[in-house]
This record gives sequence, structure tokens and C-alpha cells, in this order.
Amino acid sequence: MNNLTKIKIEKPTSEVFEAFVDPSKIGNFWFSSSSERWEQGKTITLIYEEYNAQLDIHVLKVEKDKEIIFQWGPIDENYIVTITLSELDHTTSIVTVNEEGFKETDNHFVQRLIDDKEGWVFMLTCLKAYLESGVTDLRTGLVKD
Amino acid sequence: MNNLTKIKIEKPTSEVFEAFVDPSKIGNFWFSSSSERWEQGKTITLIYEEYNAQLDIHVLKVEKDKEIIFQWGPIDENYIVTITLSELDHTTSIVTVNEEGFKETDNHFVQRLIDDKEGWVFMLTCLKAYLESGVTDLRTGLVKD
Repeated sequence: MNNLTKIKIEKPTSEVFEAFVDPSKIGNFWFSSSSERWEQGKTITLIYEEYNAQLDIHVLKVEKDKEIIFQWGPIDENYIVTITLSELDHTTSIVTVNEEGFKETDNHFVQRLIDDKEGWVFMLTCLKAYLESGVTDLRTGLVKD
Repeated sequence: MNNLTKIKIEKPTSEVFEAFVDPSKIGNFWFSSSSERWEQGKTITLIYEEYNAQLDIHVLKVEKDKEIIFQWGPIDENYIVTITLSELDHTTSIVTVNEEGFKETDNHFVQRLIDDKEGWVFMLTCLKAYLESGVTDLRTGLVKD
């Protein structure tokens, strides 16, 4: 089973792409830091200071302005995230995040799906507010307890 | 099973409360229109023009600046939504949305949980952007297809 989330952003795909791969931009809408520029084959360390979280992602594929695929989570669980950018016109992008690897036999299957859905919707909405309106202080608003 | 989402908003609870109950405000972050002011015992018609959606909610309880409880969805399914506002200090609110009524025996149980989680996270993030930064054009960004 997968977890699919889509949002429309009134910016060209090149700007959306850079927001993800450029470590100086990610702190405006998602993690507080990214260890280096996202490129195919690299392992990137992402830190979410405000939630005391740190994780590595393994970048499997990068196609400029079009697609980013990475693996995250425990290595034996193999969750794969695909971010796809498509341009409706030169000023509008559709950003799709598809996370795969959920197993219905996992005891925490439903909770994991829901938690991850929460994260994707929140990140994408923060990204839209950042790119369209320059709002950069939403990303720490979600309360997890 | 329930669906719980929490967000922190740097505004007093009175402003958050008015955003929900005042029909002139809801179009800045959620539905395009609300038929009248939300008050206990009323049935309110909500329209989401951009998604061709219309629904009635039955307001079960309103406690000014603190709590709103309503029933929505098919009457025999009895989904209950509780919006709770708590003030961390005079300028910061925690907004909690708890939706109850999901039945694990329902064939669409997981999909309904995930779809509703998407909606709550999106609405609350749009509400935060509206109240804190005056951004009112996020609410139509989610792509459903």
C-alpha cells in the first residue's frame, strides 16, 4: 500500500526542485538542516532540531526539475519516497509525494500510514506557503505528543 | 478509532475561535462558505466550491474560545469532530481536532482515516498561515484525483 499526496504550487518546477535539493532552503519549510546538496547516490543526513529527530536518506535517483527518489527508514523496511514535479504551465507545478513500502501485516501499519500522511501534507503545505508567499515559520507548528 | 491532529498557532484562542464560527472568515483557510454563524444546536451548510463539495454539519456544542463539537457525514455513521482550543499563554494557542466514529469493520476504514487526516492537517496548516501571516490562498492547493 502507498501513501500519495499532491499539491499545486504557483511556481515553476525549477524552484520547487531547488527547495528540496539545496540545503540552504530546506529549513524554510521542512527539516532544520540537510547535510549537503541532494544528488543521486548520496546519503544525506536530515535533522529536525525542534522534534529531536535525525535520519539518513539514500538518494536513489535525481532528475533535475522532474523527480527525486530516496529510501528512508530502517534499511530492512525499505520505504521508498518518490517526489514528482510536473509543470501545468510555466508558473504552476503539481508536486506529488508517493511513499511506498507499507506492509499490511505490520502491527503499526495504520498508525504509520497516518503519521506519514500527516507529515507529507504538512510539509507540502509549508512548501507552498514558503514558495508562494515567503512564509517560513510554519514548519515547527505541528504538535506531536 | 480516532483521528487526532494538533497545531500551535501564535494567536490567542479568541481569534482562532472566531476563524471557525464567523462565516466571513472560513473562506480564508477552509471551506469557501459557511451558511451562518456556528452556534450550539444549529445545522450549518458548508460549501467547498473548488472541490464541488457541499455538506451539513450539526453543531452539538459551542463553548466560546474553548470548544466546538459537531457531527458530520452520513447520519447513520455518526462521525463526531471535536475542536479544542487551549491557550499556552495570551498569544499562543494549541488547536486540537479529534474526529471519532471510525469503524475498523468498515471496508473503507483505512482510506477514510487517511483522507480525513489529510484534510485536518491541511486545514490546520492553512489556518495557521492565515492567522499568523495573513496568507489566504493556500486552501485550494490540495489536488484530489
